[in-house]
Amino acid sequence: MIGAGFMGAAHSQGWRVAPRFFDLDVKPEMAVLVGRDAERTQAAADKWGWAETATDWREVITRDDLDIVDIVTPGDSHAEIAIAALAAGKHVLCEKPLANTVDEAEQMAAAAEKAAANGVLAMVGFTYRRVPATAFAKQLVADGRIGEIRQVRAAYRQDWLMDADGPMTWRLDKSRAGSGSLGDIGAHAIDLAEYITGMQLDRVSGVLDTIVRERPLLGEGVGLSGTAAEERGTVTVDDVAVFTARFGVDGGYAPIASFEATRFATGRKNALTIEVSGSKGALVFNLERLNELEFYDATVPSNDQGFRTILVTEPDHPYLAPWWPAGHMLGYEHGFSHQVKDFMDGIATGAQPTPSFADGLHVQRVLDAVERSSAADSAWAVV
Amino acid sequence: MIGAGFMGAAHSQGWRVAPRFFDLDVKPEMAVLVGRDAERTQAAADKWGWAETATDWREVITRDDLDIVDIVTPGDSHAEIAIAALAAGKHVLCEKPLANTVDEAEQMAAAAEKAAANGVLAMVGFTYRRVPATAFAKQLVADGRIGEIRQVRAAYRQDWLMDADGPMTWRLDKSRAGSGSLGDIGAHAIDLAEYITGMQLDRVSGVLDTIVRERPLLGEGVGLSGTAAEERGTVTVDDVAVFTARFGVDGGYAPIASFEATRFATGRKNALTIEVSGSKGALVFNLERLNELEFYDATVPSNDQGFRTILVTEPDHPYLAPWWPAGHMLGYEHGFSHQVKDFMDGIATGAQPTPSFADGLHVQRVLDAVERSSAADSAWAVV
Amino acid sequence: MIGAGFMGAAHSQGWRVAPRFFDLDVKPEMAVLVGRDAERTQAAADKWGWAETATDWREVITRDDLDIVDIVTPGDSHAEIAIAALAAGKHVLCEKPLANTVDEAEQMAAAAEKAAANGVLAMVGFTYRRVPATAFAKQLVADGRIGEIRQVRAAYRQDWLMDADGPMTWRLDKSRAGSGSLGDIGAHAIDLAEYITGMQLDRVSGVLDTIVRERPLLGEGVGLSGTAAEERGTVTVDDVAVFTARFGVDGGYAPIASFEATRFATGRKNALTIEVSGSKGALVFNLERLNELEFYDATVPSNDQGFRTILVTEPDHPYLAPWWPAGHMLGYEHGFSHQVKDFMDGIATGAQPTPSFADGLHVQRVLDAVERSSAADSAWAVV
Amino acid sequence: MIGAGFMGAAHSQGWRVAPRFFDLDVKPEMAVLVGRDAERTQAAADKWGWAETATDWREVITRDDLDIVDIVTPGDSHAEIAIAALAAGKHVLCEKPLANTVDEAEQMAAAAEKAAANGVLAMVGFTYRRVPATAFAKQLVADGRIGEIRQVRAAYRQDWLMDADGPMTWRLDKSRAGSGSLGDIGAHAIDLAEYITGMQLDRVSGVLDTIVRERPLLGEGVGLSGTAAEERGTVTVDDVAVFTARFGVDGGYAPIASFEATRFATGRKNALTIEVSGSKGALVFNLERLNELEFYDATVPSNDQGFRTILVTEPDHPYLAPWWPAGHMLGYEHGFSHQVKDFMDGIATGAQPTPSFADGLHVQRVLDAVERSSAADSAWAVV
Repeated sequence: MIGAGFMGAAHSQGWRVAPRFFDLDVKPEMAVLVGRDAERTQAAADKWGWAETATDWREVITRDDLDIVDIVTPGDSHAEIAIAALAAGKHVLCEKPLANTVDEAEQMAAAAEKAAANGVLAMVGFTYRRVPATAFAKQLVADGRIGEIRQVRAAYRQDWLMDADGPMTWRLDKSRAGSGSLGDIGAHAIDLAEYITGMQLDRVSGVLDTIVRERPLLGEGVGLSGTAAEERGTVTVDDVAVFTARFGVDGGYAPIASFEATRFATGRKNALTIEVSGSKGALVFNLERLNELEFYDATVPSNDQGFRTILVTEPDHPYLAPWWPAGHMLGYEHGFSHQVKDFMDGIATGAQPTPSFADGLHVQRVLDAVERSSAADSAWAVV
Repeated sequence: MIGAGFMGAAHSQGWRVAPRFFDLDVKPEMAVLVGRDAERTQAAADKWGWAETATDWREVITRDDLDIVDIVTPGDSHAEIAIAALAAGKHVLCEKPLANTVDEAEQMAAAAEKAAANGVLAMVGFTYRRVPATAFAKQLVADGRIGEIRQVRAAYRQDWLMDADGPMTWRLDKSRAGSGSLGDIGAHAIDLAEYITGMQLDRVSGVLDTIVRERPLLGEGVGLSGTAAEERGTVTVDDVAVFTARFGVDGGYAPIASFEATRFATGRKNALTIEVSGSKGALVFNLERLNELEFYDATVPSNDQGFRTILVTEPDHPYLAPWWPAGHMLGYEHGFSHQVKDFMDGIATGAQPTPSFADGLHVQRVLDAVERSSAADSAWAVV
Repeated sequence: MIGAGFMGAAHSQGWRVAPRFFDLDVKPEMAVLVGRDAERTQAAADKWGWAETATDWREVITRDDLDIVDIVTPGDSHAEIAIAALAAGKHVLCEKPLANTVDEAEQMAAAAEKAAANGVLAMVGFTYRRVPATAFAKQLVADGRIGEIRQVRAAYRQDWLMDADGPMTWRLDKSRAGSGSLGDIGAHAIDLAEYITGMQLDRVSGVLDTIVRERPLLGEGVGLSGTAAEERGTVTVDDVAVFTARFGVDGGYAPIASFEATRFATGRKNALTIEVSGSKGALVFNLERLNELEFYDATVPSNDQGFRTILVTEPDHPYLAPWWPAGHMLGYEHGFSHQVKDFMDGIATGAQPTPSFADGLHVQRVLDAVERSSAADSAWAVV
Repeated sequence: MIGAGFMGAAHSQGWRVAPRFFDLDVKPEMAVLVGRDAERTQAAADKWGWAETATDWREVITRDDLDIVDIVTPGDSHAEIAIAALAAGKHVLCEKPLANTVDEAEQMAAAAEKAAANGVLAMVGFTYRRVPATAFAKQLVADGRIGEIRQVRAAYRQDWLMDADGPMTWRLDKSRAGSGSLGDIGAHAIDLAEYITGMQLDRVSGVLDTIVRERPLLGEGVGLSGTAAEERGTVTVDDVAVFTARFGVDGGYAPIASFEATRFATGRKNALTIEVSGSKGALVFNLERLNELEFYDATVPSNDQGFRTILVTEPDHPYLAPWWPAGHMLGYEHGFSHQVKDFMDGIATGAQPTPSFADGLHVQRVLDAVERSSAADSAWAVV
């Protein structure tokens, strides 16, 4: 695994726990943790349970005794590492967003396609597809329970930047993060909307904005934030993005989807939400209540209709069988175990797991189209 | 109408509004308001729209030009007025609880039965039967949607006595109010549980308690409370009641119902709640969200099950047809319009409207059994 | 009152009930109901309690014994009636939207300004300003409890057009209704956002769409819908509108507001919602739970922060004093009583009640800007 | 670890994960898994990551290379194993309920007290004390934020027995399970009520009942249930328990607490709920939304009061620091990691972790008092 930040802890938990609950035909072992700072990387490896550490990913990805490379670095290094690892014949799991630019993402998708021909798999880590409630939402749509889709509303709302004196982190620096709320969290909303509906966006009109444009530089990092230094810097990424999109369709009505990605939604800590309205029903999901899915069945008599709150913890719900009895809740990190399960199943069977790098590229193109639209007075931009 | 307090305003709104929305074969007119204080009664009549006022109910109930007597006085005067009015051939609508004692309630029920033989009707004002959501709940039970009933939980929680320095009012004086939280609000919970389930309680085990036993006497009354005088008095009624009951059944399982009536449930303003669990489904109602009914249908596939929040505002829901389009909410006082509608329909057709005085007597007997059980170390008391 | 449709019933309830609860210095009397069809108008007048009826509004508005004209007709007749009534020296209450075009609205605002010079008042009926929870929301913003506003999300979601075979009504005909979901319900969302924040929108970028473009013609009208005829017609108004807006500010950050108006939000019956995010707190309101306001106070210690659900039924909350004890719910039509109260207070004191025709004109200009933006590839349009 | 059923998986996850997130001075190693069936135990050990297996716990508990014994067997074997393990000088973590009888529990508590004198620790596994939201609730009470406690309502509601044809399992057999809903889940409600309030129950009045008294015998066990055999057996434990209790106090008001434990609450999957009402505020917790705590602060102005939903995921909330950023949810099994942390901290420091065996004995005595009261016509029984 390359990268030893917050996402590294989450991925480690996935690698550690997945084989303890799921029956995997191929079982992962936690071999090498790679980080820039030798000491900190060793401490993380001890804590998380990696057998070895290294500081140069280039040396690690070519080792014969390793089969999988898991990339959890900031977005600006994804392309280089992933392409090299695929070229070295390693299966690659890469955190989202796939890359910081469409250009990089295209190269990665091409590398993945080439690798696939040799049985080497690449997958991008949109982990919120692996919350049982979102996977169940997709099932309901696929089973026709929602009918023809008419509208989608998706948003990812956080508030951790609302303190105007909170410090700059790499996530606020365009050269590192690529984009701000749009790429970091909006990307999840886009992927989730496409995943659940089974449709792809083909046009967008939107606006990016930076609510707080100057902040103290980062002193010492703590969690997703840190302490403030005296000097101030300029926030070079968006901290709010609002856009409208159209799904592409072959005939019929092309539904509108509205999106919001923000870190200034006071009181919303991690509210990735989606509502899908269709001719036969509707679905509502909120990551802050991740074990629940609201489902409205418009085919029952009108007197009986209502949004029902389904606890997605039954043994027949997606991913649930090996966990706890019904009503026993899962948490954030379970998605990483499910991701490991799906990835290892792909490796065991040779089937491409989703989302592929091509899927990640598509999300990147949507992000790019939003930026272009925002720069063009919000005129519609084709994905 | 006899009585000019808070309930008088609510009943007046019922008489005023019902004929403006419902098609009534017999239309009520707001004739005479009777109160002890001439001046205050005249002011109330002007405000509420009563044509005349009087201070002696005895003179009013025998007037030939009046057909209906509506009693909204404290419970200690219900029996005398109601029995006299029925004897005078007037249809009687009497606020709950029917009386302060079982003895009085028995006399009233007997009077009502006798009057019914002459086509004179009597009805007791458990208005929460007339919230569309509770009436719809009863329908669902009656239609078998809940299956065999296994458990019932009912509670009426308020917090307006939680300030230990709040003053005494007549509602805290046993000689006036008969009982405290038990009779005033617990009675509603009992009636609602029996109404929705269509079953009657036949045994109870419970405890009454007075959390704050001494309070300042009342200075001037304001709404349900008022200002505090310097002197202090003893609270002679319960302010919390907790009891368990059994429904009577002819064979089969006799379900347990748990009840709570309290004015010390911090943050609960008017939370009359009921949950009915059955072999095929469940229902949850909360008066603080009176336009909603939660329904759990256990007959759909387990993956799809969940409590659905039905907005009980569809035109085919009980009482809804003449009101607003779906999704437009009703409030507290609509129950009083529905009560007038049902009472006037009874008068027009000669059919006994429910709840009858006999129903009111039954609730009184349950209240009495709770008091007896509480006095006997919570041993079970037969209703 | 001119107009005898659904809104007529709501306004009648306002005129009837307001003086029974509020102390009004000038008390309204329900004099004349005007409708096109004499028989139906007479039936409505009998039902609703109007003393007389008429079929020609021109004759009525000049009568010396009348002081107020209440206009509840479709939007295409608002301008003509309102201007004539103001010219005749009558105080005018006009349902929203003020008019079907900016041009008409400008004439109306001019007429209102002229009339005001003579002490004749005009008010537009954005009744959702008069829900206690929205009025309390405005108070919280005005009191600085939300801090500097960063983002607003407003939507009005219904689903009564989701049946593609539901018939055409006048609300789907551009020549009668002016616009569709945008003008009918989006207008409420715009007004509410401006009312609560105390700010005005000055730019918009958006898209209008018609999801179902052909429908059966209307057979007989029933409520907001009706039966379907055999012939089919073309829906000439939008049934979904999604737009982004900027508030105008004098220096500082100009917050983004996102809006949606739709009649295809499956399961949403009357969901006028608004969320205001600020530097000190946040507010969430939903008309489907109209007695509640969610408030997030970001100034308390972070461990204690959370959205609190305030039951806006306390005696000190706006409009609440004359109603019921805390925890007793109000409904949809109470807003109309509050509207009558505010209008009559304005007449009694000579002070302009809000929203004025100028406020209504501003909303009309926002609607117009949305239409212009939608027609111009969603480029930003100045209000 | 002795026992290889459902609770074994949960405890294993606790042992595995706790040292990966918390800084433990003494780190546990997963040494030996003991089960009756050698083959099934080996399979479980492989799956869960235990180094060795054994079938005779007596041989294991005396091994010199082991320091800790974790007991997750059914309640009838707790006493024997725990007493032996403590005698052998092993620290003991024992699943709740402590034992099946008061007598056994007394012996265990005595053994624990004796062992403590030698620095050997014993702890009972009421894991729901270790949900961050319940630990935070306790903090709020201890900090005086709720004021003087007036009432408590606690319940544990499940519905997994609602199918009358569901088979017998050991949990329905009094000889194995000791008691039914009362001991299995009611015990959690009792412990949680005492933990949060910091008070102990000293009297109870209640009723136990068995709603479905005959069921098919168990074919093959699956999760908490299994397949039905042809033969039928008698359910010898309660499946619903309802009781009222008093907390013991030194002067002042002794608050009433109401309890319910049921497996027939249709639609409630794992609803361990508690509401604490006090003179300054109130708390509501529901295990089905385990990351949330509702808090009502009655000390703010009445217009601002409301139940606020606190996401208990902030870094300063109990147990949260080493986990994810705010708004990232924890699940059911995190409580087991927190239990391991607290137990290992106790071992490292020599301080008795809570709940002790004495605490477990007290809960056992409450259970016993409920059984005695139920057998005595619900008369009050002293704990």
